[in-house]
Amino acid sequence: MTSSNKLKIVPLGGLGEVGKNMTAIEYGRNVLIIDAGVMFPEQDMLGIDLVIPDWSTYLQDKKDWVRGIVVTHGHEDHIGALPYLLNDINVPVYTTRLSAGLIEVKLRKKGIAGKVNLNIVRAGERISIGGLFEVEFFHVCHSIPDAVGLAIRTPAGLVVHTGDFKFDYTPTWGDPPDFGALARYGSEGVLVLLADSTNADIPGFTLSEKTVDEGLDKAFREAQGRIIIATFASLISRVQQIINAAARHNRVVAIDGRSLEESVERAQELGYLDIPPGLLVDVRQLKGRPDRQIAIIVTGTQGEPSAALGRIADGRHRQLTIKPADTVIMSSRVIPGNEQLVGRAINKLFQQGAQVIYGKAGNVHVSGHASQEELKLLLNLVKPKYFIPVHGELRHLHAHAQLARSQGIPPENIFVVENGVVVEFSDEEAQVTDRVPGGWVFVDGSGVGDIGPQVLRDRELLSEDGFVLAIVRLNQKTGQLLHRPHIITRGFVYVKEKQDLIQRAEEEIMAALHLSGKDAKTTIRKTLSELLYSETQRQPMVLPVVIEE
Amino acid sequence: MTSSNKLKIVPLGGLGEVGKNMTAIEYGRNVLIIDAGVMFPEQDMLGIDLVIPDWSTYLQDKKDWVRGIVVTHGHEDHIGALPYLLNDINVPVYTTRLSAGLIEVKLRKKGIAGKVNLNIVRAGERISIGGLFEVEFFHVCHSIPDAVGLAIRTPAGLVVHTGDFKFDYTPTWGDPPDFGALARYGSEGVLVLLADSTNADIPGFTLSEKTVDEGLDKAFREAQGRIIIATFASLISRVQQIINAAARHNRVVAIDGRSLEESVERAQELGYLDIPPGLLVDVRQLKGRPDRQIAIIVTGTQGEPSAALGRIADGRHRQLTIKPADTVIMSSRVIPGNEQLVGRAINKLFQQGAQVIYGKAGNVHVSGHASQEELKLLLNLVKPKYFIPVHGELRHLHAHAQLARSQGIPPENIFVVENGVVVEFSDEEAQVTDRVPGGWVFVDGSGVGDIGPQVLRDRELLSEDGFVLAIVRLNQKTGQLLHRPHIITRGFVYVKEKQDLIQRAEEEIMAALHLSGKDAKTTIRKTLSELLYSETQRQPMVLPVVIEE
Repeated sequence: MTSSNKLKIVPLGGLGEVGKNMTAIEYGRNVLIIDAGVMFPEQDMLGIDLVIPDWSTYLQDKKDWVRGIVVTHGHEDHIGALPYLLNDINVPVYTTRLSAGLIEVKLRKKGIAGKVNLNIVRAGERISIGGLFEVEFFHVCHSIPDAVGLAIRTPAGLVVHTGDFKFDYTPTWGDPPDFGALARYGSEGVLVLLADSTNADIPGFTLSEKTVDEGLDKAFREAQGRIIIATFASLISRVQQIINAAARHNRVVAIDGRSLEESVERAQELGYLDIPPGLLVDVRQLKGRPDRQIAIIVTGTQGEPSAALGRIADGRHRQLTIKPADTVIMSSRVIPGNEQLVGRAINKLFQQGAQVIYGKAGNVHVSGHASQEELKLLLNLVKPKYFIPVHGELRHLHAHAQLARSQGIPPENIFVVENGVVVEFSDEEAQVTDRVPGGWVFVDGSGVGDIGPQVLRDRELLSEDGFVLAIVRLNQKTGQLLHRPHIITRGFVYVKEKQDLIQRAEEEIMAALHLSGKDAKTTIRKTLSELLYSETQRQPMVLPVVIEE
Repeated sequence: MTSSNKLKIVPLGGLGEVGKNMTAIEYGRNVLIIDAGVMFPEQDMLGIDLVIPDWSTYLQDKKDWVRGIVVTHGHEDHIGALPYLLNDINVPVYTTRLSAGLIEVKLRKKGIAGKVNLNIVRAGERISIGGLFEVEFFHVCHSIPDAVGLAIRTPAGLVVHTGDFKFDYTPTWGDPPDFGALARYGSEGVLVLLADSTNADIPGFTLSEKTVDEGLDKAFREAQGRIIIATFASLISRVQQIINAAARHNRVVAIDGRSLEESVERAQELGYLDIPPGLLVDVRQLKGRPDRQIAIIVTGTQGEPSAALGRIADGRHRQLTIKPADTVIMSSRVIPGNEQLVGRAINKLFQQGAQVIYGKAGNVHVSGHASQEELKLLLNLVKPKYFIPVHGELRHLHAHAQLARSQGIPPENIFVVENGVVVEFSDEEAQVTDRVPGGWVFVDGSGVGDIGPQVLRDRELLSEDGFVLAIVRLNQKTGQLLHRPHIITRGFVYVKEKQDLIQRAEEEIMAALHLSGKDAKTTIRKTLSELLYSETQRQPMVLPVVIEE
């Protein structure tokens, strides 16, 4: 067996998280890609719109080897980067029906739906991809219907990848997970397991989606007026639960927010939402209906000021203004980093007189990821030889590795790795053999990958104390100052109130240029920086512009 | 009784939170101020260093009426604005010994310690302030020693203010709270209660500080190498617990981080820390000592890159580099909004091989604020006629109001108000009578209050897509372009890679100026904005500078 005929597994995408958004599996001259999702920029990625996995280095000489892309489920962080990836490497995509429907919406928007070979598979089905990889899709439960895990048979052995999952015995949509398949892989012999680590540091079992029904029922029963309920567009199962609660409590449901409308429409078309006739109405049809017969599902779970809930909280929504008897329900998790925005939105809703149901006590949301006891069960069903915890930050992977050790997997068979690390498997052994850049690429406007650390550093500096730019006109020959310097500043001080400081800065530049024999730019920068710091204790970006006439 | 002889209560400081950092009590021509703390800027307050309460409008005509300031405890959010307030209104300050010690450090740094009349009181003591307010300080438990609540006797009746508190039966420092005093006020008859709402939406009882001992003991027992433990400088009781754990497990303790060193030194001087001789050593004295005999307390609980823990995580700390057997303990809460930074620091510590103990499962931190069952007990002891929930965001105040209703306080006697709202009490009734600006003031560098919405908006724009500035030189008489335009940009694109775009922008400006009859600035702004958006889908701040020669 030559080196290139070993099995390689490479997590390739995730911001802090490992293998969350993309993973590559390589054997011989064949590459299979699992998922291609987007990440949302962190707080210090100023002005960045989206973040996508950096597959370019790993795949640069291997584009012809890529046989296909398999997608585990239809969430943004697993399908959002597909248009970018397919633009680069156009190979067949394989996924379940709802995921395919949501991918299609995305491809159509980018105008490439016609060019992509998008194949629908069913859980339980087994297909051959590129003549080498035999991929079996097995049913799992997650917060979106039609989620699957993958059992990938390779010449080196069987690879099992859970995708995002939890062990829900009473899911909102479909059956409990396919425990039988997992046990079957276990008896067949699994070379390596890659498993979701999102909640690997949380003890116990994740609550069933079913428990949310109780929280929703209580809220729907007690609400005195309208119900406004915020959830993610992609939480299709949650939308179904809300529709069921509304039906039980004689309320119609309207939807407000483009992403929600689109995904509900698509899910309904494909038969993944069961909506009684007449229950779903347009927001404009709510007029004249008693408040106690109204529920409105809105976008804006993260407090985003531009989403429907944000506009309602700010009093900027055209159709919807909070009335004192309204109940607002926050039925989703708060993404870390968004706590302040969400908290602010909740406070504003209270300020306008709404009752707001949120957080753990509200019992209106549960996680879609397995906790420690489920992960132990998984390890005991699948009994892998090697284990790679994925879908989590390093701290979660370490917690997951700890669980695996507690279940008897030898420490040397567990690989806690980062994105871009190549783990290589042969019959006899497994080892880390290489590390390629496997981080991420920034998307800002129409630019993909053109924003780097220098631009971000400038944005950070500008965001702290703004800039001060001084235009100085000098005689080309004598170097004499021709005019009074002209200062332009933004984000530093409120100029109208600081005319004296600006004037003083202009004068100090004149005096310094008169005295100094040094380069004019250096003199201006030094003079300005020192003056502005001593007067304000701030450090704006200082930009000297010298025009020689 | 004239209107001015009614009792007025005005919460004056808090960012989102109500009355958190400052409250005023007015009767006749007498004003008593409770606390004067700082707030930490929220994510969108770009470049702002500190936020202080806006007392100026409320007190502008009443500065002579202010009789004194009482301080409940020595945390930054209760004492941090004192130097600013005392600079404006120099009146006597009354507080307990540790709080006074911490205030003194602060005043000394600002060079005003000599000018301030700082008085030390003891829990249980009753003093007269300004001849009108009789203030009794009662002992409460919080995460810093020497915390007190206030029973303020006024001609209108008795006002009870809890300060920050929890009902801890086994506190680390001192006795359990003074339940006797609370019951005594209850029998005497309390006009109005102001109580801490921080955890009013959390069911049950807050765990005792004592339970942290178990978590620390486990961590200290199991640690194979050094222990590095991050906590707040102000959590003096936690520092004591760490010292106790180190003593039990034969480790010396070093402290790294200026704020920690200062507050430990001050607390030790004043007798609030009990440190066995030889236990506390300098970081430089750790060399040569076995790792299993070392514990280091560090600053940086919020993942701040400049604090000790941040530098350790980044590998930028001069003395401390993570070794594989090290255990890092995060013994403090994560302030909402800092989750990403803290998560990143934890991941980096794992990356360097440390074990990191954090979060609920770690059992190494508890809240210092009362939860729902404690708040119910408080209401039952104090039995106030009126109730004003304070120290919380609106959602917490609403949860607290709900609790008060459940304990039989009539809804019309509960005032959920915001900062700057004046609640007026007479013998017969209580009502909201006025609303003054009671928000906050930004401190940026040495500027207090000079940064307003315009500057912040500019900083936000600059942080998103940077700026593009075009300098155009025109003939003063003919308006003809004299030179090729000169473009300066930062934070927009990486200029080295976008020379063609910059050149094209210069050329389009030339063409547009040649054609357009309009004002040159308008033409430049429009041309640039349109070109840059169509080429990049970004919207940098566009600044035209026209020089007429």
